[in-house]
Amino acid sequence: MEEIIGFIGTGTMGKPMALNLIKAGYQLNVYDVNPMPLEELKIKGATICLSSKEVASKSNVIITMLPNSEDVEKAILGENGVAEGANKDCVVIDMSTIDPISSRKISNNLSKRNIKMLDAPVSGGSWGAASGTLAIMVGGEEDVFERCLKIFQGMGKKIFYCGPNGNGEIVKIMNNLLAGINILATGEALSLGVKAGVNIKVLYDVINASSGQNFAMQNYCANKAFKGDYEPGFMASLMYKDMGLAMALAKNEGVPLLIGGLGHQMYSNIVAAGFGKKDMSIFLKILEELKNIKIRF
Amino acid sequence: MEEIIGFIGTGTMGKPMALNLIKAGYQLNVYDVNPMPLEELKIKGATICLSSKEVASKSNVIITMLPNSEDVEKAILGENGVAEGANKDCVVIDMSTIDPISSRKISNNLSKRNIKMLDAPVSGGSWGAASGTLAIMVGGEEDVFERCLKIFQGMGKKIFYCGPNGNGEIVKIMNNLLAGINILATGEALSLGVKAGVNIKVLYDVINASSGQNFAMQNYCANKAFKGDYEPGFMASLMYKDMGLAMALAKNEGVPLLIGGLGHQMYSNIVAAGFGKKDMSIFLKILEELKNIKIRF
Amino acid sequence: MEEIIGFIGTGTMGKPMALNLIKAGYQLNVYDVNPMPLEELKIKGATICLSSKEVASKSNVIITMLPNSEDVEKAILGENGVAEGANKDCVVIDMSTIDPISSRKISNNLSKRNIKMLDAPVSGGSWGAASGTLAIMVGGEEDVFERCLKIFQGMGKKIFYCGPNGNGEIVKIMNNLLAGINILATGEALSLGVKAGVNIKVLYDVINASSGQNFAMQNYCANKAFKGDYEPGFMASLMYKDMGLAMALAKNEGVPLLIGGLGHQMYSNIVAAGFGKKDMSIFLKILEELKNIKIRF
Amino acid sequence: MEEIIGFIGTGTMGKPMALNLIKAGYQLNVYDVNPMPLEELKIKGATICLSSKEVASKSNVIITMLPNSEDVEKAILGENGVAEGANKDCVVIDMSTIDPISSRKISNNLSKRNIKMLDAPVSGGSWGAASGTLAIMVGGEEDVFERCLKIFQGMGKKIFYCGPNGNGEIVKIMNNLLAGINILATGEALSLGVKAGVNIKVLYDVINASSGQNFAMQNYCANKAFKGDYEPGFMASLMYKDMGLAMALAKNEGVPLLIGGLGHQMYSNIVAAGFGKKDMSIFLKILEELKNIKIRF
Repeated sequence: MEEIIGFIGTGTMGKPMALNLIKAGYQLNVYDVNPMPLEELKIKGATICLSSKEVASKSNVIITMLPNSEDVEKAILGENGVAEGANKDCVVIDMSTIDPISSRKISNNLSKRNIKMLDAPVSGGSWGAASGTLAIMVGGEEDVFERCLKIFQGMGKKIFYCGPNGNGEIVKIMNNLLAGINILATGEALSLGVKAGVNIKVLYDVINASSGQNFAMQNYCANKAFKGDYEPGFMASLMYKDMGLAMALAKNEGVPLLIGGLGHQMYSNIVAAGFGKKDMSIFLKILEELKNIKIRF
Repeated sequence: MEEIIGFIGTGTMGKPMALNLIKAGYQLNVYDVNPMPLEELKIKGATICLSSKEVASKSNVIITMLPNSEDVEKAILGENGVAEGANKDCVVIDMSTIDPISSRKISNNLSKRNIKMLDAPVSGGSWGAASGTLAIMVGGEEDVFERCLKIFQGMGKKIFYCGPNGNGEIVKIMNNLLAGINILATGEALSLGVKAGVNIKVLYDVINASSGQNFAMQNYCANKAFKGDYEPGFMASLMYKDMGLAMALAKNEGVPLLIGGLGHQMYSNIVAAGFGKKDMSIFLKILEELKNIKIRF
Repeated sequence: MEEIIGFIGTGTMGKPMALNLIKAGYQLNVYDVNPMPLEELKIKGATICLSSKEVASKSNVIITMLPNSEDVEKAILGENGVAEGANKDCVVIDMSTIDPISSRKISNNLSKRNIKMLDAPVSGGSWGAASGTLAIMVGGEEDVFERCLKIFQGMGKKIFYCGPNGNGEIVKIMNNLLAGINILATGEALSLGVKAGVNIKVLYDVINASSGQNFAMQNYCANKAFKGDYEPGFMASLMYKDMGLAMALAKNEGVPLLIGGLGHQMYSNIVAAGFGKKDMSIFLKILEELKNIKIRF
Repeated sequence: MEEIIGFIGTGTMGKPMALNLIKAGYQLNVYDVNPMPLEELKIKGATICLSSKEVASKSNVIITMLPNSEDVEKAILGENGVAEGANKDCVVIDMSTIDPISSRKISNNLSKRNIKMLDAPVSGGSWGAASGTLAIMVGGEEDVFERCLKIFQGMGKKIFYCGPNGNGEIVKIMNNLLAGINILATGEALSLGVKAGVNIKVLYDVINASSGQNFAMQNYCANKAFKGDYEPGFMASLMYKDMGLAMALAKNEGVPLLIGGLGHQMYSNIVAAGFGKKDMSIFLKILEELKNIKIRF
């Protein structure tokens, strides 16, 4: 059976993901509160719907790609939402990055209505969405994951099955928590090394070949920040949001995150200082200006 | 000219390093406050001396490998020390991990006596020392570094020239600062992920292929802590010492290290709790017991 | 007009508060999911109701004293809740310590139904509730506050008007945030002073007469912890909850709390270690055991 | 026996302290590397000396009031220093705020020469020095303290005997550590309360009457910062220095200071941002500008 796909939320990330599914040969029903991207998708062959309910009623697999928990809950469980229009044997895939606790609440609710759900947040940014190279972390029942694997492969490159509902969100958030801290720790270590008189190229080359090596330094710093480029990449405000999700999960689970809690507040500071839309590596530029140094290749 | 090498400080690290130099064909003059390892070195062909001064008087290149700044200062500048016995055109190489500020003071002092010095701290632990695969980060004049390169190659695999005196220490300490934070951040993220219901293997595999990837997680956790092995590796007390050097440097340079300062105190906590002689990844075990979870493959 | 008072939530705090209102001469209608304390209140003259709705229908002023936001929202806005039974010109007073954001949502909702609300969280603990000496921080319209002042005086000693709805909660939470940090900072400073060889009595007397003086040290430490008494007082788990409310508010307002964020996680650690039901000064005992010292008079 | 007093270090603090001793009827021998204040003291009756040694040779009690450990060590133990000129039965009183570890080293050294020493750092700032109302925290032998009590009373109001050598320094530093954290925590709580819509006067009045009350808020904020006055008071750079002494002591004693470590780095940030010469309450102004709020009466 070829799946008919519904796509709700066709913004910066959702639109290119939907386009890739069309390119992969899928028939798409699309909806967004903003009609603009829908027209573009229509030209490529998608059918525009007037509500999440209508999308659900016409599709086997319904994907949501929305900014936050409230939006997802409303689109799936709210009035004129997915649950109201859902067909027998359909699957709901929420690809938004949201609170795993909320995600599990929604999947529990759908489960009572005999609707299967996967949480499948992505990483790779708008560039990954456009090029179909996203990483996708999936939570839910394994056979449901298997059923949807081909669809995921239409949007991404690295597809990870992470276990029961909510686990996709958790894994993504834990990864981002680590990446976010790594940027901060990298910024601190490099700014001190440079201030103390070491060439940044030397610092980077040695650390990158040693026990301090980390992906965030390689990719967000060496490839961009060290060249004076602080355009995202991964926006500081998004990292602030994701670390906030990590802190909320920590509260829910009673797990102390001392480094995490401080890091979250440091991103709060970065955002409050007006740098939310810059790449998270903007922290290095803040340190540059504070100490009148250059952390540049 | 083949260098005659003096080696002062033949402990856990120094002895195997000295043995490798003998194996590489160098003639060695050795001294330590503890006579035991000296006997073993003598059997392999080294000449035992009775003071640092005597070592210096018989050698062209004098290596020190000692626990802390005070020891190094005493061995080099103190009574019956290296400076008193040093020959014309000799080079002093301090391979201890010490305060870069102290290191620079010592090299300045030697410079006034027309003695060249390199700071050349190592990483790789006692295993790296024994196998001759240490990483060596070298500060000092470049031609002096070139002169000693072959000697370094007798003890290590990755030899990095880092710039003027003190820079070897700084680069090493900045690297360790990062590694130390990465262990803490990794422990927090993984303990939360596991507590929230994700399999550690899944967490690790995804993060290791994503933006949270870092060497410390791969090597100290995946290879050891995840298997319940918390033997060093890199002792928590040494990380506490190295992060203390980073904090002292930060104070000297006026560079704020918020994450670093917290991390340093967290290692203080780990050491105070009696875990100083365990691998720094013991932090994961502390979190395991706190939340009654298993962060194990 | 003498007010007829409804009281919903007659637990550890609510029951003695209700008893004080009866003592002050008020007629009370009471409800709780747990029938036990209701019987005791009935003996003292209160009328037992079977739902929050019934309480509301029989009263002019309805007080809620419940554990968390969800409970308050359910009791006031839920099925068979206060809003369904509320009379014209009644006032709802929520005396629970909850999220100010939730509190404002509830008051906005009631406002649309022409029902006035005050948020009026208390401090002083169960002892203050029993003795009628609570501090009460009130948010809402000033004339509504004036109307209810006599009722507040029946339960507390220090009554503070804090401005519009939600402000009572905010002021209480900000106060507790500070008190919570002061305990942690006091514990750190005193444990170090004692470890370094100073008598605790000397440390306390000097600091208490100097710029480090703070209420938390005087009352939670000098009066209790220094005597080896770690019974609440103010439970560590409640401080963890209140600091969590502060962190949630900080997220909502985009205000960075670096010290607050770390302090919150330190209480998370204390609770995870099994000390949640002890007084928040239990932190001193943890430090005593860590460093094998006595912080005792 | 009336003591003849030597005074070494007649700067911002030392000069008014010396003047108060002259006013109290003492005969003074004075020395400073800077001759300017000496002339003024001469007019008031002091005898100018040309070295610390000369001061010592002419006095029974020698007071040092210098910027840091190195200066104190040099003045007391260095060439032409106090120890070289000291008479039998003299007492050295170091009133500088320095590292207690260094202070104890100096007193141990003097002890071997049969010279008694007290450490007696002060608080109260230049205003307290001028008005003779300093608080003085004294470490050393109790009979030596008794012998010098009248001298202390010539300079200060609250004189605290804190136990053996070094304890005066420790108590002062622990007090300042607490005061420094209290300013940071107060700033965070107040900025959040104000941003969330509470009047600062209300916030202050309630907290000041509740469990969050602290001296630092009352004196540095309410009396100054809330009025837009960020002139010292107590300079941020001095708090950075004192918290640095606390962190060094913590390292020496192996006591973890998580809040302290973060606070120290936050002051490092404040100093790096150029606010070192402002009162430590400048932190509130930084938060005002970050969130575009006013924390003002």
